[in-house]
Amino acid sequence: MVVAMEQWATEEQIAAVIARLQEHKLDVHRSTGTSRTVIGAIGETHMLDLQAFEVMPGVAEVVRISEPYKLASRTFKREDSIVHVGDVPIGGKEIVVIAGPCSVESLDQTRRTAERVAAAGARMLRGGAFKPRTSPYSFSGLGEEGLEILRTVADEFGLKVATEAMDRTQIDAVVAYADMLQVGARNMQNFTFLRELGKTRIPIMLKRGLSATYEEWLMSAEYIMAGGNHDIVLCERGIRTFETYTRNTLDIAAIPVIKKLSHLPIIADPSHGTGRRDKVIPMARAAIAAGADGLLVEAHVDPDHAFSDGVQTLNLDQFDELMGQLRLITPVLGRTIR
Amino acid sequence: MVVAMEQWATEEQIAAVIARLQEHKLDVHRSTGTSRTVIGAIGETHMLDLQAFEVMPGVAEVVRISEPYKLASRTFKREDSIVHVGDVPIGGKEIVVIAGPCSVESLDQTRRTAERVAAAGARMLRGGAFKPRTSPYSFSGLGEEGLEILRTVADEFGLKVATEAMDRTQIDAVVAYADMLQVGARNMQNFTFLRELGKTRIPIMLKRGLSATYEEWLMSAEYIMAGGNHDIVLCERGIRTFETYTRNTLDIAAIPVIKKLSHLPIIADPSHGTGRRDKVIPMARAAIAAGADGLLVEAHVDPDHAFSDGVQTLNLDQFDELMGQLRLITPVLGRTIR
Amino acid sequence: MVVAMEQWATEEQIAAVIARLQEHKLDVHRSTGTSRTVIGAIGETHMLDLQAFEVMPGVAEVVRISEPYKLASRTFKREDSIVHVGDVPIGGKEIVVIAGPCSVESLDQTRRTAERVAAAGARMLRGGAFKPRTSPYSFSGLGEEGLEILRTVADEFGLKVATEAMDRTQIDAVVAYADMLQVGARNMQNFTFLRELGKTRIPIMLKRGLSATYEEWLMSAEYIMAGGNHDIVLCERGIRTFETYTRNTLDIAAIPVIKKLSHLPIIADPSHGTGRRDKVIPMARAAIAAGADGLLVEAHVDPDHAFSDGVQTLNLDQFDELMGQLRLITPVLGRTIR
Amino acid sequence: MVVAMEQWATEEQIAAVIARLQEHKLDVHRSTGTSRTVIGAIGETHMLDLQAFEVMPGVAEVVRISEPYKLASRTFKREDSIVHVGDVPIGGKEIVVIAGPCSVESLDQTRRTAERVAAAGARMLRGGAFKPRTSPYSFSGLGEEGLEILRTVADEFGLKVATEAMDRTQIDAVVAYADMLQVGARNMQNFTFLRELGKTRIPIMLKRGLSATYEEWLMSAEYIMAGGNHDIVLCERGIRTFETYTRNTLDIAAIPVIKKLSHLPIIADPSHGTGRRDKVIPMARAAIAAGADGLLVEAHVDPDHAFSDGVQTLNLDQFDELMGQLRLITPVLGRTIR
Repeated sequence: MVVAMEQWATEEQIAAVIARLQEHKLDVHRSTGTSRTVIGAIGETHMLDLQAFEVMPGVAEVVRISEPYKLASRTFKREDSIVHVGDVPIGGKEIVVIAGPCSVESLDQTRRTAERVAAAGARMLRGGAFKPRTSPYSFSGLGEEGLEILRTVADEFGLKVATEAMDRTQIDAVVAYADMLQVGARNMQNFTFLRELGKTRIPIMLKRGLSATYEEWLMSAEYIMAGGNHDIVLCERGIRTFETYTRNTLDIAAIPVIKKLSHLPIIADPSHGTGRRDKVIPMARAAIAAGADGLLVEAHVDPDHAFSDGVQTLNLDQFDELMGQLRLITPVLGRTIR
Repeated sequence: MVVAMEQWATEEQIAAVIARLQEHKLDVHRSTGTSRTVIGAIGETHMLDLQAFEVMPGVAEVVRISEPYKLASRTFKREDSIVHVGDVPIGGKEIVVIAGPCSVESLDQTRRTAERVAAAGARMLRGGAFKPRTSPYSFSGLGEEGLEILRTVADEFGLKVATEAMDRTQIDAVVAYADMLQVGARNMQNFTFLRELGKTRIPIMLKRGLSATYEEWLMSAEYIMAGGNHDIVLCERGIRTFETYTRNTLDIAAIPVIKKLSHLPIIADPSHGTGRRDKVIPMARAAIAAGADGLLVEAHVDPDHAFSDGVQTLNLDQFDELMGQLRLITPVLGRTIR
Repeated sequence: MVVAMEQWATEEQIAAVIARLQEHKLDVHRSTGTSRTVIGAIGETHMLDLQAFEVMPGVAEVVRISEPYKLASRTFKREDSIVHVGDVPIGGKEIVVIAGPCSVESLDQTRRTAERVAAAGARMLRGGAFKPRTSPYSFSGLGEEGLEILRTVADEFGLKVATEAMDRTQIDAVVAYADMLQVGARNMQNFTFLRELGKTRIPIMLKRGLSATYEEWLMSAEYIMAGGNHDIVLCERGIRTFETYTRNTLDIAAIPVIKKLSHLPIIADPSHGTGRRDKVIPMARAAIAAGADGLLVEAHVDPDHAFSDGVQTLNLDQFDELMGQLRLITPVLGRTIR
Repeated sequence: MVVAMEQWATEEQIAAVIARLQEHKLDVHRSTGTSRTVIGAIGETHMLDLQAFEVMPGVAEVVRISEPYKLASRTFKREDSIVHVGDVPIGGKEIVVIAGPCSVESLDQTRRTAERVAAAGARMLRGGAFKPRTSPYSFSGLGEEGLEILRTVADEFGLKVATEAMDRTQIDAVVAYADMLQVGARNMQNFTFLRELGKTRIPIMLKRGLSATYEEWLMSAEYIMAGGNHDIVLCERGIRTFETYTRNTLDIAAIPVIKKLSHLPIIADPSHGTGRRDKVIPMARAAIAAGADGLLVEAHVDPDHAFSDGVQTLNLDQFDELMGQLRLITPVLGRTIR
């Protein structure tokens, strides 16, 4: 990190900054120019709170050079991480598609959906059991019964299960039934929750918050990893911008950027990312072309009567169409798909 | 709500939309123009999921005319609500200032801060006991011991206590010690949490999410109100925009807008709203001038050594200066201040 | 369009709204519910200013159902438009790559760049002759000499020329030397300029403004088309969001959305869209996978010594690599490339 | 500025960076830590293009410590600048209100508006003569006839005139008739235009672009100042964010921030900043309370029949109400008002 002093900073103020940096066991180097002094500090700066330096008298600006995260960083681990969800590896050569309805509505709806997505090449089944929604007057999920349905159906068709826990009181139930625990965008900075997840050993799918920077997203991964759980798959699902025609703006550039900053796998969710069914297939193609390790896609046997998110959900013929297109694209990108 | 049909929509498609609207006991009116049919529906549309209509064949667009919230709406309740936190009324003629440190660090730090902010005219003491932070490597709060300190010190100086619960497992502890429960910006759409808060009877301070629209914010208030707790104070604390010089962009216009849309009181947090200590006083003045019912301000006996957020925290002389300025402005705005 | 009246609106107010709508020769339909009256109006509403209705007494809300643009709309013209830049068709089956340096710096630099991009498969040469930059202290372009260099070099290697005019005083010079006139993002709503471009017959590349919605972008196209010039190619080049790691957020979803709303061709600029050289190739792949009709790419014989934008500019080996990858992907997408 | 090298950077790469910094006559200081080398450079860095260093081999990051602008900076000139528009000083103790219609529609409309705003205490008359609008089908202004009307009417009531030029071909006309030339938000980075304005000696009102950072805004001021015209008044008029209820988000914090970064006066435009007539008065109060030197307000003798922007325009009774409120607030803030 670099501390730039004000032009009028006194020698005492400069000395105080240097002393406090040295307390943190950093290598400190001072550069005194004709107009201004700049202090460089090198070492374990990711443990430091920069704000503590910004408020010191005589300090003009504090700039972090290295990232504030460590375990999640590509610097810390050079080779790509592969997260194994049972026998499904995410982050390797194979593109993994996770598909299913927004909400688990019934055994029949889930089974009919799962049968077709499995046949089309999906490796994992998604579905929400806990679904508190934006409106208190909407359907809010089947709860534990939904988890049972997911498990039963997934086993029937050889799929793994990914599903969301909304807070720490739901972790045990999800761990009991599912293979991967999803952290929703609205929970990405629910730190009490992240801390508990660090104590589990279930693979985590960590969705990006609606207004989270890359750095904040990786810091949330760091939270879980610092607790001991390193099996994290990041999921880009769109950010909030001024453009409201699409529900969110799917930030495809996040894929190559995260690949550079981190060793963790990254997948994309073109359903939430666009909020419009007819945009899901082109954006799924784009995400894979940009280097994503997989996709999270909403598909439903009858999306026009889905209890939630129907407007962005593929029907099963459209899901077949998506998988057919991916099977053409993946080989030219040097990847495989089931 | 209004459903605009595509130009090529068939009579069957139009009839299907009308039938489904009538199922929901709405008054339905059909307008057939030379090029297009438009269907109006009037009634309890805030219970409806618009998406269910958007996916129907032949539908071009669905537009909600009335708000998706009801209990929080100015239409539902014309006169201003006053939320009583003990004997402190928020939303009436008096401007209420809630002040204190970001984190409760010790009894001594809290007492020295509280003594001065009480003397200067603050009515309530703020302070964080549960403080999980962006980095897993930072100080994370004293927990229940922090709540005890807040209660003891507040009682000593005749203040009420506002403090944050991070999730539903912390609600009981906060209810036991505090007078007002704060919902942080990152929790504004934590719906399992909001649902539990609806069952309590403690006044809630609901901070606006970093990327929440006015409508989403009021829907979160509706969530709590739908559970039976109507004592909600909204708190504008800055939104995320492209401008990064300030930590957030304090959306002062939220104050008159919310006053129009809702009967609930609204206060502003210029500390988080700017993230810079020297901007707190001018933005506090601006919020009050725009019609805010109060302020949430970070103040600390020694902000340069605060465990968190020191860079945006006033020292106690600066807090005196703030209160002095507010005492000049409030009378000309027709408000009072302690 | 739909005008929703307030619940307390009087019969006179309703009648006044209906009368004003009828003045504009619209079909008007009135729906009176138990609580509220809604008025539908159908016809040439794209000529109307909605604000004139919003301020009428008793009006609660005015909602436009159809788009405010007409000539640029897919409703107006169902089949895809192909814009011919000389013998290069943009918007057909062929993917068109436009490549070259940010600034024309010298004949030698331009020739060495053009030779290689032509050999690699680019069809058009880009390069800035007029380059006023963010800082008044930076290089600002060779002016007309730069245009001559572009023309000479492009002819030598069988390329067409695309270059930017900054305002209406530069239109004649660009028309004299170039085959396509680029409107930069900062000029997208320079309406006096757009009006003049409507009078020309040179194909226009219209870049999206940094904070322009899809609708505003298409309205700017409409501006030019209303003047008589229908040869417009849209270019997505990234929008401004809260994420600052990338220079802009390349909104890949714009590609399928614009394809639905409009008949005009759309290309993408992954160089400005990311601002980072190592992200250009994955984002170029993503844009083509999402359905773009071409790419605008910065390439330079020696980007590390480019006068401007070097940090986002490919060197010529990287450009070869890009074209090699595109040649693999385009066939599986049903497109061709030179 | 600070150049942080990659951990694996070679001695040759480090030496190359140092050499290039020294070419620019900067004081260079090298800090070599156990893991990384950091190079500090001090001097006239506002003339430098940081990108040229970012692309050098072995460079990890380049950070500018000082601002990229100089003439506009508070560091360059400590005391507040006062811009004199005829006998009206902007930036001193007096709050200056500039009021009038969005568009000049007729002599009668302008005179009836001007008479009342002058009587109420406005010092300057605003009004658009050149009004190209978002839609090519809307009213686009009276042109030079509008300028004549403004001049005649302003002289009649002792007001100064502020009006917009849309590009450099309109500068002469505006200089001939007006006292202050307005640069609109969409033109804030029209650098060919800014360069020409630097050659004039008319005071400039520089509106902030919809998505311009503080730094970009001040760089645009620098552009004009570098040409020799130092009489610049900045105008905050709202930025584009995800919130669409208000037309823009008026960034009140810009006022104290700009006051710190720059010596130039700053005013606020609550009409464009909110886009809603009933929000103009509270936001005007807020801007003044935050330290603004004046206001730009749309007022019209009959806003419900205004040719443009009527929905955000005050009628003349509302303007009287605004001025009455400002007369109460300004004294307690230590300012005066006519």
